[in-house]
Amino acid sequence: MPAPTLDFWFEFASTYSYPAAMRIAALARERGAAVRWRPFLLGPVFKAQGWDTSPFNIYPAKGRYMWRDLARVCEGLGLPFTRPAVFPQNTILASRVALVAFAEGWGEDFSRAVYTAEFGEGRDIGAPETVARVLAALGKDAQAAMAQAQAEENKLALRKNTEEAQGLGVFGAPSFVTADGELFWGNDRLEAALEWARR
Amino acid sequence: MPAPTLDFWFEFASTYSYPAAMRIAALARERGAAVRWRPFLLGPVFKAQGWDTSPFNIYPAKGRYMWRDLARVCEGLGLPFTRPAVFPQNTILASRVALVAFAEGWGEDFSRAVYTAEFGEGRDIGAPETVARVLAALGKDAQAAMAQAQAEENKLALRKNTEEAQGLGVFGAPSFVTADGELFWGNDRLEAALEWARR
Repeated sequence: MPAPTLDFWFEFASTYSYPAAMRIAALARERGAAVRWRPFLLGPVFKAQGWDTSPFNIYPAKGRYMWRDLARVCEGLGLPFTRPAVFPQNTILASRVALVAFAEGWGEDFSRAVYTAEFGEGRDIGAPETVARVLAALGKDAQAAMAQAQAEENKLALRKNTEEAQGLGVFGAPSFVTADGELFWGNDRLEAALEWARR
Repeated sequence: MPAPTLDFWFEFASTYSYPAAMRIAALARERGAAVRWRPFLLGPVFKAQGWDTSPFNIYPAKGRYMWRDLARVCEGLGLPFTRPAVFPQNTILASRVALVAFAEGWGEDFSRAVYTAEFGEGRDIGAPETVARVLAALGKDAQAAMAQAQAEENKLALRKNTEEAQGLGVFGAPSFVTADGELFWGNDRLEAALEWARR
């Protein structure tokens, strides 16, 4: 029997995608599931809902809660947490680099390192220097990877991911979609998504 | 040492308050926690966020997801689920009756019965006949309870609950607030709230 698969739709700007990204590999391994990491952009998805920024900025009570809750969630998982000064961040470059990285087999390490820089250390991953530093720390040629990331076909691939996510009904991140099309939204629903994947 | 307490802020119109209301008593008992059930109205809370109806109606992708997810959550818990034709429902009468019921010690049974009528059987609990039927099934004098519910001081008590919830930072339901003021939002965060309560 083939391993059940789960698509993990994530956005580097998404706060709750951070704990999900740090948890998913170990949880999937325990349950014998294969995960496909699918970077996409929330900007167009939010625009379709009439928002020009994160709902956590538009609705202050919700935003205040989210930052507090995220700090608690990270504490519970033993993850470093620093609230970044900039939120949401421009994640286009990091997301494009992630696509290159996944094609070459080091996408998970890169993605976790980006999340750690952003929400563990509070850095601005919208700055190319931050992305370059993450790449260098992974032993990659930063300039080469960023040049590949900015190739037209790679930009298009990210747009296609985003359109595919919208077509699947994704309206926020993190989202998880099983092979039979079941959508689960939120770090809290990761376990339920993995359970569904192996039904 | 006194038992840790947790305030359970719920709204009969709130879909995810249904599984939370059906789960909380057993979970709290297992953990030796005392729960105070606090009915309130989401209408004024949503209005303060610029919404004149449920966000699940305003944002269709989110709404579609919620109904599917709620069905899955209920299935996982063995709870009956029927999507009501009317959503969100007018919950003022039921909420006022709940305050009377809690004052008399049968509030939990009443609240669970209201949720079962609404989301288990798909009934319109905005109709006074539905509330009367729930009361009768619990062996209560429906007309007397509803008359008490509509007394000015009881109406005021519900408004005060709603204001208190807003003052605590509540922006949705279900919400859980510990004695030291920690807020947790969502059925998914009930276990975390109970853990926090007994720290």
